[in-house]
Amino acid sequence: MSASRRTVGVIGGLGPAATADFFFRLVSRTEARRDQDHLHIIIDNNPLIPDRNAARKGGGPSPAPDLAASAQRLESAGAEILCMACNTAHAYERDIRAAIRRPFLSMIDATLEETSRRCPQARTVGVLAVDACLEAELYQKSLAAGGRSAVILEGGAQASFMTAINAIKAGEAGDEPARRMRAAVQELTLQGAEAIIAGCTEIPLVLHSRDAPVPLISSTDALVERVIIVAGGALRKSDQFA
Amino acid sequence: MSASRRTVGVIGGLGPAATADFFFRLVSRTEARRDQDHLHIIIDNNPLIPDRNAARKGGGPSPAPDLAASAQRLESAGAEILCMACNTAHAYERDIRAAIRRPFLSMIDATLEETSRRCPQARTVGVLAVDACLEAELYQKSLAAGGRSAVILEGGAQASFMTAINAIKAGEAGDEPARRMRAAVQELTLQGAEAIIAGCTEIPLVLHSRDAPVPLISSTDALVERVIIVAGGALRKSDQFA
Repeated sequence: MSASRRTVGVIGGLGPAATADFFFRLVSRTEARRDQDHLHIIIDNNPLIPDRNAARKGGGPSPAPDLAASAQRLESAGAEILCMACNTAHAYERDIRAAIRRPFLSMIDATLEETSRRCPQARTVGVLAVDACLEAELYQKSLAAGGRSAVILEGGAQASFMTAINAIKAGEAGDEPARRMRAAVQELTLQGAEAIIAGCTEIPLVLHSRDAPVPLISSTDALVERVIIVAGGALRKSDQFA
Repeated sequence: MSASRRTVGVIGGLGPAATADFFFRLVSRTEARRDQDHLHIIIDNNPLIPDRNAARKGGGPSPAPDLAASAQRLESAGAEILCMACNTAHAYERDIRAAIRRPFLSMIDATLEETSRRCPQARTVGVLAVDACLEAELYQKSLAAGGRSAVILEGGAQASFMTAINAIKAGEAGDEPARRMRAAVQELTLQGAEAIIAGCTEIPLVLHSRDAPVPLISSTDALVERVIIVAGGALRKSDQFA
């Protein structure tokens, strides 16, 4: 154990399969020869946190108090850096940061920085994300501030993408969600996207880089890499969306 | 959220890939149409807990204090039932139970009950487990008490199995660990095993039921099913080692 290692706290359950995928990638991307080379990670997988899309639409309670409580639970349990395996819930990032003393690593920032690193020339960036994430403009504002334009799905195309996300959350097997995801990627590419941000942690559960004609930036992998480095772990080489 | 649901605490990190697999199976086996149908699960993935095999051989500190501390951390964070994603560490089950007030669900008991349920006629049961787990006789004593005889690997066959486990813990890809596991299963079958307990949570990461000529009882899946039921979740149908 390195003295410089920091215990990681993960706010999760939004949804659970995406959290399990995030955890699996955190473990796989950590360079380790034995158990003790790995990071100490505490996960609060709380799927009972109110629905983010419903809250955004005014049809349900705000998830902010439960997100803040989850962050505090992790900090009390010993987490020294915190993160959250869900893009959309970053709309409540301020509430989370206000509830804790330890640093919170933003998935949005990590993904935007990975986009700049991998695709510095891309002027038009596609953002694949659920309704509440798009409505909160978590990615679009920063892209515009950086002189890039964002393209997003609308109407039926976005509805089809939401159907895929909800099918994954419902644990549905089969190629149907993947087929909808590939169609979403094609649509964004037709709209001029030179790179696409996979801005929802359910996406990498069914979509792979080979499915996209342009670079696909995984928000899951971007945060995984950031967390391992900041926590003092060693990063194992790997392709995103492998 | 059902009022009868109970928050699950998982002592993990022993090793991390096995804990991620346990978590993934917990999520996949829970019948859910949306995030909020899932269980609240808190995972303490602490890979810094001292090595169980080294401790057993007298070459390292006991993991008991850290296991007890992990259990207390989970209970303080809100866990209402606890479990541990590692067979071998159940040698310290008494220390864990003594440290908490909430119930602890034993992976060993869940696996033995699943063995009785699935293979009531099997008189000879193979136990595939690491050195420290076999030396602690976690499975053999109960099998004998139930009138069954246990067969285990010895010498070079057990050494080859340990090589496979350590390769999985080191994150090694490729078919080599799987090949060693299949050879281990063959050896136990040759010794008369009519069923084989996969008594190490690393095993399902590379071995599948189709690789065994006799029923393979996954300790991971046995505990996953037990936890979902006791926590008040609904169990989704699935084949073990799918």
